[in-house]
Amino acid sequence: MRFFSDNTASVCPEILEAIHAANQELAVAYGDDPWTRRLDEVLGEFFGARVRAFVVATGTAANSLALATLTPPYGAIYCHHEAHIACDECGAPGFFCGGAQLERIAGEDGKITADALAATLDSMSVSVHSVQPAAVSISQATELGTAYRAAEIAALCEVAHARGLRVHMDGARFANAVAHLGCSPAEVTWRAGIDVLSFGATKNGALGAEAVVFFDPTLVRDFELRRKRAGHLLSKSRFVSAQLLAYVESGVWRRNAERANGFARRIGAAAGERLLHPVQANEVFVRLGAAGKAALRAAGFEFYDWGSPAAGEARLVASWDQSERHVDALCAALTAP
Amino acid sequence: MRFFSDNTASVCPEILEAIHAANQELAVAYGDDPWTRRLDEVLGEFFGARVRAFVVATGTAANSLALATLTPPYGAIYCHHEAHIACDECGAPGFFCGGAQLERIAGEDGKITADALAATLDSMSVSVHSVQPAAVSISQATELGTAYRAAEIAALCEVAHARGLRVHMDGARFANAVAHLGCSPAEVTWRAGIDVLSFGATKNGALGAEAVVFFDPTLVRDFELRRKRAGHLLSKSRFVSAQLLAYVESGVWRRNAERANGFARRIGAAAGERLLHPVQANEVFVRLGAAGKAALRAAGFEFYDWGSPAAGEARLVASWDQSERHVDALCAALTAP
Amino acid sequence: MRFFSDNTASVCPEILEAIHAANQELAVAYGDDPWTRRLDEVLGEFFGARVRAFVVATGTAANSLALATLTPPYGAIYCHHEAHIACDECGAPGFFCGGAQLERIAGEDGKITADALAATLDSMSVSVHSVQPAAVSISQATELGTAYRAAEIAALCEVAHARGLRVHMDGARFANAVAHLGCSPAEVTWRAGIDVLSFGATKNGALGAEAVVFFDPTLVRDFELRRKRAGHLLSKSRFVSAQLLAYVESGVWRRNAERANGFARRIGAAAGERLLHPVQANEVFVRLGAAGKAALRAAGFEFYDWGSPAAGEARLVASWDQSERHVDALCAALTAP
Amino acid sequence: MRFFSDNTASVCPEILEAIHAANQELAVAYGDDPWTRRLDEVLGEFFGARVRAFVVATGTAANSLALATLTPPYGAIYCHHEAHIACDECGAPGFFCGGAQLERIAGEDGKITADALAATLDSMSVSVHSVQPAAVSISQATELGTAYRAAEIAALCEVAHARGLRVHMDGARFANAVAHLGCSPAEVTWRAGIDVLSFGATKNGALGAEAVVFFDPTLVRDFELRRKRAGHLLSKSRFVSAQLLAYVESGVWRRNAERANGFARRIGAAAGERLLHPVQANEVFVRLGAAGKAALRAAGFEFYDWGSPAAGEARLVASWDQSERHVDALCAALTAP
Repeated sequence: MRFFSDNTASVCPEILEAIHAANQELAVAYGDDPWTRRLDEVLGEFFGARVRAFVVATGTAANSLALATLTPPYGAIYCHHEAHIACDECGAPGFFCGGAQLERIAGEDGKITADALAATLDSMSVSVHSVQPAAVSISQATELGTAYRAAEIAALCEVAHARGLRVHMDGARFANAVAHLGCSPAEVTWRAGIDVLSFGATKNGALGAEAVVFFDPTLVRDFELRRKRAGHLLSKSRFVSAQLLAYVESGVWRRNAERANGFARRIGAAAGERLLHPVQANEVFVRLGAAGKAALRAAGFEFYDWGSPAAGEARLVASWDQSERHVDALCAALTAP
Repeated sequence: MRFFSDNTASVCPEILEAIHAANQELAVAYGDDPWTRRLDEVLGEFFGARVRAFVVATGTAANSLALATLTPPYGAIYCHHEAHIACDECGAPGFFCGGAQLERIAGEDGKITADALAATLDSMSVSVHSVQPAAVSISQATELGTAYRAAEIAALCEVAHARGLRVHMDGARFANAVAHLGCSPAEVTWRAGIDVLSFGATKNGALGAEAVVFFDPTLVRDFELRRKRAGHLLSKSRFVSAQLLAYVESGVWRRNAERANGFARRIGAAAGERLLHPVQANEVFVRLGAAGKAALRAAGFEFYDWGSPAAGEARLVASWDQSERHVDALCAALTAP
Repeated sequence: MRFFSDNTASVCPEILEAIHAANQELAVAYGDDPWTRRLDEVLGEFFGARVRAFVVATGTAANSLALATLTPPYGAIYCHHEAHIACDECGAPGFFCGGAQLERIAGEDGKITADALAATLDSMSVSVHSVQPAAVSISQATELGTAYRAAEIAALCEVAHARGLRVHMDGARFANAVAHLGCSPAEVTWRAGIDVLSFGATKNGALGAEAVVFFDPTLVRDFELRRKRAGHLLSKSRFVSAQLLAYVESGVWRRNAERANGFARRIGAAAGERLLHPVQANEVFVRLGAAGKAALRAAGFEFYDWGSPAAGEARLVASWDQSERHVDALCAALTAP
Repeated sequence: MRFFSDNTASVCPEILEAIHAANQELAVAYGDDPWTRRLDEVLGEFFGARVRAFVVATGTAANSLALATLTPPYGAIYCHHEAHIACDECGAPGFFCGGAQLERIAGEDGKITADALAATLDSMSVSVHSVQPAAVSISQATELGTAYRAAEIAALCEVAHARGLRVHMDGARFANAVAHLGCSPAEVTWRAGIDVLSFGATKNGALGAEAVVFFDPTLVRDFELRRKRAGHLLSKSRFVSAQLLAYVESGVWRRNAERANGFARRIGAAAGERLLHPVQANEVFVRLGAAGKAALRAAGFEFYDWGSPAAGEARLVASWDQSERHVDALCAALTAP
């Protein structure tokens, strides 16, 4: 019974069907195909704004390419202490940006507050000797399974923009956050001030499909050249674009996210007092103790330790295709006396 | 009637079927799945050698990651003057290697000769002031649609190895070359001295699947870390691995390559005297003149200019799924008085 | 009356004399001259160990080149939250290391403790997704004017080495620390476990002379190539080497450091309760309040704010060539009622 | 009797005197000193134009930092096949530009012609797949001891500018070229279209002093940040600036260059038919044969082989402080029957 990661989930039928449908004879390569050419329009409707969108195959590529268009090599990127870009991408932002420096900010439940950002930026002495503040990156949902509310994002963006920084959102679990908040995609992105979004579908039912979505078209600049030289311009781009079109147009983005979120809420409820963070997406962080973890594993549940194994904390992730029976069993195990 | 590029071709049924078959419930992410775990063994059998293989989604990623494991940032990579890595990857080798320098060598029909390589290396004065010769990269089939014979490769590798350089092969059209030569995959790779191969399937019927195949396992070193930080570790790697397993195990690699090569040979024969290079894979380079090109296009044929438009040269590529009727029409048009 | 920085000081006569003495006819360029060739031996005697030493013109170059020989592009470098490499080198370590990530550790008085280092390293989950811990960098004297004792360094190095990390020391004010501690250069470097030292002379009386000193010759590897391609191999290296030889052989390193340290101690004593950190080198950090700073400046004293101007904190640096009269005046101003 | 390199020469008295004169008490560090602040004005007068000038310690730093301000990481830099930046800087342009690609152009006597540049640029197919042409770099004097005439430079710059490229001049031996041509510094720089110059003094009598001189101030952009993070912002910049001020204001730039050029002309005349290139600066390239080289060396002359030792070619460099007696001896040896 796997609660490892939504990265392990299968491809949902609507998306696999779209791949089939795109498999018709010869198309033009490298993104000049009918599917990719529809992307700006379809995502523009989804977000209720003019956008420029580019497909890539991984979230790390989306994040790092987006940040590299915002950040010079001598720039600084501000992110949460436990951000994916800081902890789980093997230094990708430094690589893509040509050496830019990550500046990490602490904050509860995986979030940076506007105040903490302002305090960090104000305490820095900026000169030719320092790195130059360039971008802020936040995750929605966060690494700790919480979701920023629109007002929180707007406050952060205001602090950043007032000081000349741009704001990137790592939306690897964007659908889960939006489904939880019950808001529109626009409310937590451009309307709140987000400049560029890594819009992930892979964790929520796609085979491998992410889009970098620019809400400010002046920022696109050299994105396409950076993507190409990083090996992220896919020759058969149509098969990635087709996944994203289906993801958005069929509504599976919300349906899958709601299913996973619902499971996570049930698991969170079963965990009760042992919860480490509010459950606002599809991840549940629980303090189980070494014995508790061992007991769950002995009962057939698979999941990752959170932090060092000795810490006794666990991460339980519900995927869009999780078996309901397994969730029932996990809840029962968590509530067993 | 499209003769643009094999990048525009569809996915062949056996490979699409393999993607379906891999779409079963939850697997472990990031390559620790049953499909990816079989890759070394299956490719090892294919090549008749112990190999270490890693999947990525694009040929540019495969080439650059392979070269980055062989080449320090102050290294030099020797390649043909018209190599894909020098002309068509937007500087990717420089990016992945942290600034390594490409040294280009001229040669007929897209090939470097052992003598030209030796002369180039011997004329360089190597010191702390110069870049340090590190790797040679050749393409099989070449950018000009020709195939290196095993003896040619062996001679090149001998020159390179004798001077401490490693040899990489860009095998974006590896199947086409092997099908033409009628040899085994081993003969033109490790037996001839190749250290690492970019083994491409995308142009020959896959959706998006390339493998970096190391024949010398001591060279693997930090490949996995470099892949991760470049955003090329796919969370759902099983869907790429499954394509490669099907490609090799079902024999479609050879069937598709032979079909495309056969078409190219027919087109080449129709071109006759106007051929610029021998046809030894699935690409045909023809001197048509401006009028000849315009006439073909007026007749509904789509293809790329080769070199500047004024040069009057055309590249015609036959894909694995090319319509026989279109090839008939093209041959007729080329032989029309 | 300037208390800005020891970077503003003049060149001491012994060192200027050595530059003159080296200005004899034609020498061999790029470090193959008699002065540079003596460096390993003379610094070896100074440190009481076999060393390999390389000259460069700036401390930033020394630090970054040293770290780049220890750290792969996907590596992590651990340093104090206020380290010069993190705050005052415009991202140089990220540039030289090809994107390596700085991980900052908090600690009192500018020091990392062995416990804090161990806790940081133990809390990191190292996998293909994370950066790879590679090096620790400490400053001696620290950015806050304190000096690590030999036992503190040894404890840090033990933690680092036990986990496979190497330890670099930024010794821009190395002489000041050694003069304060009254120890030998060996005690706080290789005997305590330091692998490589940036040995600075510029702040302490040289014109522009730093050496990267490797105590473990196996680490030297590609240092010379990295130095050359960064533009830090000086054609007339003899004039930098001659400065370092004079600095060490004439004993001015200690004499100059003691003079500056003595001034700083006097200023620190005058500051009394307002001191922010113990005075253990030639820098004094004082809480003066906005009014206090304004009053000092009105009286003709020049110095930098520490942190944001609003914070009311000041950094006062005593240089080797500081006028005693100015120090008298500053002490008087600080103790005035 | 050393004819190795002008890098081996001593510091000329006027420049050493200027270093002394700058050694007065405390100055402000990092270039905000009276010497550095005069640089733009003094070099502006020298070039007869408004300039922005920045000091660094080496020619490699000057070249690479200049090119990095002109060239994005996915850019291409066009240079002569034997350019110093391509052959003698250990890949520095690739490092500083974050991976930019050098495109080498052949040409007689170390020069690129406008026609060859135009042909190279026109034959390139520029798209998202290719590197993006960004800059041209020429050397004055060239690596082969020749000097571009103003009209040749203007023709090159016209080709480059018409296609949106900027032009850099590597002026490591700028004074030697200007002295030979008998022109003003303006004629072969901004008046001919040069955008940025590496203005070298080290080879012509300085201790270590180069300036990057921008004739188009809009190009300066992020130069200062790039210099700092590369470790090339010298804390005691005044000692480099003072050298350059003396070099230009005292006229030693021309006096030293003329002396060295005169020696080279005499050596060239003695070499007669064996000359490989016209002597238009202070370098002489001679075909001596293996026996001829051995004989010269046996007679006590030191010099470098040019190309592989077997080629029988030698480079003889005259320095500003060369002993006239040694030149007499060399000429005699070359003309001996």
